[in-house]
Amino acid sequence: MGTPVDSTRVLIEGISPEVDGGRYAVKRVIGDRVVVECDLVADGHDAIAGRVVFRRAGDSLWQRAPLEPLENDRWRSSFVVDAVGRWEYAVEAWIDRRETLRRAIVKKREAGQDVSVELVMAERLDATKRELDRVSRSAVLSLVVDPLRARFSAWYELFPRSWGPPEEHGTFRDVEEKLDYVARMGFDVLYFPPIHPVGRSFRKGPNNTLTARPGDPGSPWAIGDESGGHTAVHRALGTLEDLRRLTRAARAKGLEIALDVAFQASPDHPWVRQHPDWFFRRPDGTIQYAENPPKKYQDVYPFDFECEDWRSLWSELRDVFFFWLDQGVRIFRVDNPHTKSLRFWEWCITEVKAKHPETIFLSEAFTRPKVMFALSKAGFTQSYTYFTWRTTKQELETYVRELARSPLRDHFRPNFWPNTPDILPEHLQEGERATFLLRLALAATLSSNYGIYGPSFELMEHVARPGAEEYLDSEKFQLRAWNLDDPRSLRDEIAAINRARRDNPALQQSEAISFHRADDDALFAYSKRAEDNVVLVVANVDPRHRRAGRVHLDPEAVDAREGESVELHDVLSGERSTSATASVYVELDPAVRPYAIFVVRRSPRARRVRSERDFEYFL
Amino acid sequence: MGTPVDSTRVLIEGISPEVDGGRYAVKRVIGDRVVVECDLVADGHDAIAGRVVFRRAGDSLWQRAPLEPLENDRWRSSFVVDAVGRWEYAVEAWIDRRETLRRAIVKKREAGQDVSVELVMAERLDATKRELDRVSRSAVLSLVVDPLRARFSAWYELFPRSWGPPEEHGTFRDVEEKLDYVARMGFDVLYFPPIHPVGRSFRKGPNNTLTARPGDPGSPWAIGDESGGHTAVHRALGTLEDLRRLTRAARAKGLEIALDVAFQASPDHPWVRQHPDWFFRRPDGTIQYAENPPKKYQDVYPFDFECEDWRSLWSELRDVFFFWLDQGVRIFRVDNPHTKSLRFWEWCITEVKAKHPETIFLSEAFTRPKVMFALSKAGFTQSYTYFTWRTTKQELETYVRELARSPLRDHFRPNFWPNTPDILPEHLQEGERATFLLRLALAATLSSNYGIYGPSFELMEHVARPGAEEYLDSEKFQLRAWNLDDPRSLRDEIAAINRARRDNPALQQSEAISFHRADDDALFAYSKRAEDNVVLVVANVDPRHRRAGRVHLDPEAVDAREGESVELHDVLSGERSTSATASVYVELDPAVRPYAIFVVRRSPRARRVRSERDFEYFL
Repeated sequence: MGTPVDSTRVLIEGISPEVDGGRYAVKRVIGDRVVVECDLVADGHDAIAGRVVFRRAGDSLWQRAPLEPLENDRWRSSFVVDAVGRWEYAVEAWIDRRETLRRAIVKKREAGQDVSVELVMAERLDATKRELDRVSRSAVLSLVVDPLRARFSAWYELFPRSWGPPEEHGTFRDVEEKLDYVARMGFDVLYFPPIHPVGRSFRKGPNNTLTARPGDPGSPWAIGDESGGHTAVHRALGTLEDLRRLTRAARAKGLEIALDVAFQASPDHPWVRQHPDWFFRRPDGTIQYAENPPKKYQDVYPFDFECEDWRSLWSELRDVFFFWLDQGVRIFRVDNPHTKSLRFWEWCITEVKAKHPETIFLSEAFTRPKVMFALSKAGFTQSYTYFTWRTTKQELETYVRELARSPLRDHFRPNFWPNTPDILPEHLQEGERATFLLRLALAATLSSNYGIYGPSFELMEHVARPGAEEYLDSEKFQLRAWNLDDPRSLRDEIAAINRARRDNPALQQSEAISFHRADDDALFAYSKRAEDNVVLVVANVDPRHRRAGRVHLDPEAVDAREGESVELHDVLSGERSTSATASVYVELDPAVRPYAIFVVRRSPRARRVRSERDFEYFL
Repeated sequence: MGTPVDSTRVLIEGISPEVDGGRYAVKRVIGDRVVVECDLVADGHDAIAGRVVFRRAGDSLWQRAPLEPLENDRWRSSFVVDAVGRWEYAVEAWIDRRETLRRAIVKKREAGQDVSVELVMAERLDATKRELDRVSRSAVLSLVVDPLRARFSAWYELFPRSWGPPEEHGTFRDVEEKLDYVARMGFDVLYFPPIHPVGRSFRKGPNNTLTARPGDPGSPWAIGDESGGHTAVHRALGTLEDLRRLTRAARAKGLEIALDVAFQASPDHPWVRQHPDWFFRRPDGTIQYAENPPKKYQDVYPFDFECEDWRSLWSELRDVFFFWLDQGVRIFRVDNPHTKSLRFWEWCITEVKAKHPETIFLSEAFTRPKVMFALSKAGFTQSYTYFTWRTTKQELETYVRELARSPLRDHFRPNFWPNTPDILPEHLQEGERATFLLRLALAATLSSNYGIYGPSFELMEHVARPGAEEYLDSEKFQLRAWNLDDPRSLRDEIAAINRARRDNPALQQSEAISFHRADDDALFAYSKRAEDNVVLVVANVDPRHRRAGRVHLDPEAVDAREGESVELHDVLSGERSTSATASVYVELDPAVRPYAIFVVRRSPRARRVRSERDFEYFL
C-alpha cells in the first residue's frame, strides 16, 4: 500500500505553446509577446488563481504574469521576451481561498443570510501560507528567443568567385565593392556557398562532368585541400581578414553575411589523414565516398556520425561554428542537415546558442516532411520548404495554411526560395518575366523569410541542363560572368517588394494570414495582419493572360465591419487610394506586373458605401 | 561546453494511443488488440526497423511485436492484452544495417555496378551488436486493462428499501427474491444507492423538506449514525452476510452488484467524533456543513481533503473500497467525485486496482467537461455523461462523435442514463411512452454502457416536483411501492433491446459508429460495426407523429460495395429480411415503436439491385 504524496488541488493541462509536450523549445523573436494558455482543472467550485512564471535561463528569480480566465476552464496570460537566448516558463495554480470566501459572502448576503462567521474567517485567513502550501506547478518549458532577423529576413545568395573582373576568380574584395548592388535591392542577408579550399581529387568539371580540365574551379561543396578544411578560406577568394572586413562593411549597409556549412570532406581534406576513423571505411581499406546508385560522388566523403570516436568528431564540427562566429559571422546556412544525425544537430545548436544566442541556422533540408520538422525541433532557426515546387493556388494555400498552424509554427520557420543553385524549377525554365515576378512576389509576401539565388534570378537565367531541374553551366562547377546592368533585370521590382516588406509589419510575420475568395480562378488573394497593419496581396497566377474579377474580402481578416468602407493604398505605385466595401474588382496584366500589394485601412470616415463596385483596380 | 551523450539515430514521435503525453494510462478491456502507431524519423536514407515492446506491469520480460511501415514515416504494430491489470508498452527503433546494405546491393546490381566489397561487408556485419548499441527507446506508457464489463454493461438502479412488502422497509432478502425481475430484462449490473446507516440529525423529510416526520427514512446519502458509517450496513436492510449472499445470488444470474460510494458524512457519523480534524471547522467551533447559498445541506458534512491529517483520511477512504471488495463487491458508483480532490482519486483508484484490477469505478460527475475528463484520466472506468440532456439529432450526433474521438475515447468511457433518482429530464415529464422508449433505445445503442433508474423508468413515472427537474415523492426521501406487474411496463421492450445488445458485438462498443443521412428530419440513423457485425439503428425522434423517409447508408460504414445489395434483419421482430441498395425507406410510428434495429449483411448472392426502392420498412 502506498502513501499519497501530492494533495494539491489544481491540475494544469493543455499548455500552449508547447512542442511535443515540452520535449523541444518553442521559438519566438525578441520583443514578442508570448501568449500562454492552459486548462486549470480542480474539483468543486472554489475560486482558482494562477500565473505564468518565466525567466531567462540561468536567472535565479522568476518573473510572474497572472492568468486570466477565458471560457470552459481555459486561462491565458502573456509576457514579453526582451532578450535573445533561452528562456523558461511554467504555470503555477492554486485554490484562491480569499476569493472563494469573498464569493461565498456575496452569495450569502444576496440570499439574506448571516455572514458574521465568514467575516471572522476572512480576517483570520492567512492566504499566503495556504497558497504556498498547495501550489500546483507544471513542468518547466523552454523558449528560444532569436533576433528579429530569424522571423523577418530577405536572403541573397551569390558565388563570390563570379563577381570578379572577366575571366578572373572573384574575391571578397570584389564582393565588397558591389555590396551596394545587393543592399539597394533591400536584402539583409548575403549568403555565400562554401568559401573553403576546394579539393583536387576527383574534382568535377563544368556541368557536373566527372573530369575537371586544368583551371576548372570545382564544386565549393568538395571541401578541403592540403591548405585546410572547414576553418580555412580558399586562397583565390582572399584571406580571413578580407572576410572579416567584408562582414563589417556589409553590416554597415544592413547586410549580415551568411556562410554555408557543409559537413563533408574532399579526399584532400586534412581530417582525412588526421582522423581517418571519422569516415566510413570499406573492407578493402578505402574510405567510402558518397553514392546514390547509379550516381557516385567520388569527390565527397561523408562523416560517420556514429564512429567510435563520435564525441571528438561532434566537438570538432561544433567548433567550426565557433571559429566563424569568432570571425564575426552570425548566420549559417547548413547544407543537407538531414543526412547528418538529428541528435548531433540538437546538441550542436544548443551548444552554439548557449554561447552565441543571436546565431541563426537555416536548414537546407529538402526531404520528407517529418524529417524537416525534426530538424526545426532540434533547433534550426529557419528552414527551406517545398514552396519551390508549389505553383497552383490550391497547393500554395494548403501549404501556407499548414505552416501557419500550431504547433508547427511554434518551431518551424519557413524560408521561401523561388530558385537555388541546385534548383531551376520547371515553371521558371520558360523564361517568362511574369513567372519570375510572380514567384518573387509570392515568396516575399507569403513568407516573411525568403531568398533568391542571384544574379541568376534577377537576370532571369532559365536554361536548364537537359533532363535536369538544374542550371546549364552552373556556377557550382565553373566561373560565370554577370551583366548586373542588364536593362531587363528585375532589380527594381525586387527593391520595391523589399521596401513594402520593410514598411509593413504585416509582411514581417508568416502566421496571421487569411485567404480571400476571387471570382477569377487565376486570381490568388491573401492578406496578412500585424496589429492595425493589414496588407492585401492579389496575384495573377496565369503568366500569359490578363485576368480580372472581384475579390471578396473576409471583413474580419481586413479589420472591416460589414458594409463599412475600407481604403486600399497601392504600395507599389503609391498613387491610388480609394474605398470599397468587402468586395473589390482587380484586373492584373502579367505583361505589366502579375501582382498588386495594398495596405488596407478602415476608412476614417467609416461611411456606408452603397455600390459594391466603387473600388476597381486595373493593371 | 557539454559533451554529447546520445548518438542514436532514430527519433520516436507521435505515439498513439497516448493520453497527455503518457501522463495518464490508456484504457482497454481484456482480449482487445491494442494498435500502436508512431513516427520513426531518422537522418539519411538508411533502412529503419522498430518494434513495440509490452508486458504486464511487474513482469520482468518484455514481449515484442514488430512495427510495419505505413506512409509518411508512420509505423504500426499491435498486441493482444490477455489479462486484466496494468500493462506497459514502449517503442524501440534502430537503423537496420543489414537491410540498408541489402538495398544498396540491389540498387548497385540494377545499375550493373560491382558489389563484391558489399558482399564482404554483409558477411562481416555483426548486426546484433550494432543494433543493441544504438536502439532508441520511447518513454514507457501505461495501459489499464479492465474486464469486459467496463466497456459493455447495462445497469439497473433500485432502492432496496422500496422492494419490501407494502408499508415495510425493504431488505436485501426482498431484493434477492426479485432478482429474476431484473435479470429477465437482461441487465448485468444491479446498483444500489448507499446501503449505510442514515443519519438522524437534520434528517430530510419527503420531497427534500427540512424536517423529517417520525418514521421518515431520510436520504441514504446522509451517511452514518452511532451504529457505523461507510463500512456498515443499514440495520433495516439486513446484515453484511445478507449482502454477501445477495451478491452471490445475483452473480449466479449474471448480475454484478454495484454499491454507491459517497464520501461525505451525516453529523452522526462515527468519524465526526473520532476525527473532527477531517472536516472543515468554522471559527465558532462548529463543523461546516455543505451549502450552496441560498441552499443549506445541514445533514451532510463534506471532508476536508487538504486537512493536516489528509494522509490518514485518504487511506481510510481507500480502505472503504477494500472493505467492500472483501465482501465480494466489484463495482462502485462514486457519488459526486468532482467535489473531491482529483489527486485523491488518482492515488486511490491506482491503489485499489493494484490489488483488485477487476474493479470498476463509475464516476457520477455531472459538471464541466474538463473536470469530467480529468476524473476519467485519474482512473475512473466509466462516467456519467450529458446524454441525459441531449435530445435533438444534431446534439446527439455531435456529442457521440466527440466521445468517439481519440484521445478522449482512450480514457473516457461514457455510460448513458435516460434518468436517475436525481434527474427526471423535462422531455420525460410529458409521460409519453414513445419518449421513454426512444430514450431507452438511444442510450442502449449509442453507448455500449447504459443504465436506467427503475422501476421508475419502465413504469414511466414522470411527475416532477414543481419547479425542479426531480421526481415528485422521490425515493431519495421516502419509501415507495411499485407495481412491477403493471401491464403498461416497458420491461419487454427493455429485454428485447438488451438481447439485441448481447447478440451483436457491434453494440458492445461505443467508438466505431457512423451516422447516415435521412430525408426526414426526425429520422436519426446510425450504424455500429465490430469486425463483420454491422448494426443499423433508425429512430424517430418525433414522439407524436409517424415519420417516414429514405435513409442513405454510407456504403463503407455498412461494409457494402456501391450498387451491391445488402440484407437487413430486423432484430426486434426477427421476421423481416430483405435486401436493398445503399438507400432504404423506413417508416416509424411512435405509437408502435419509435425505433428499428437491423443487422446489416452483405447479400451472399451479392447481386446487383436495379430499383432503389426494393427495401421498405413500415412500423
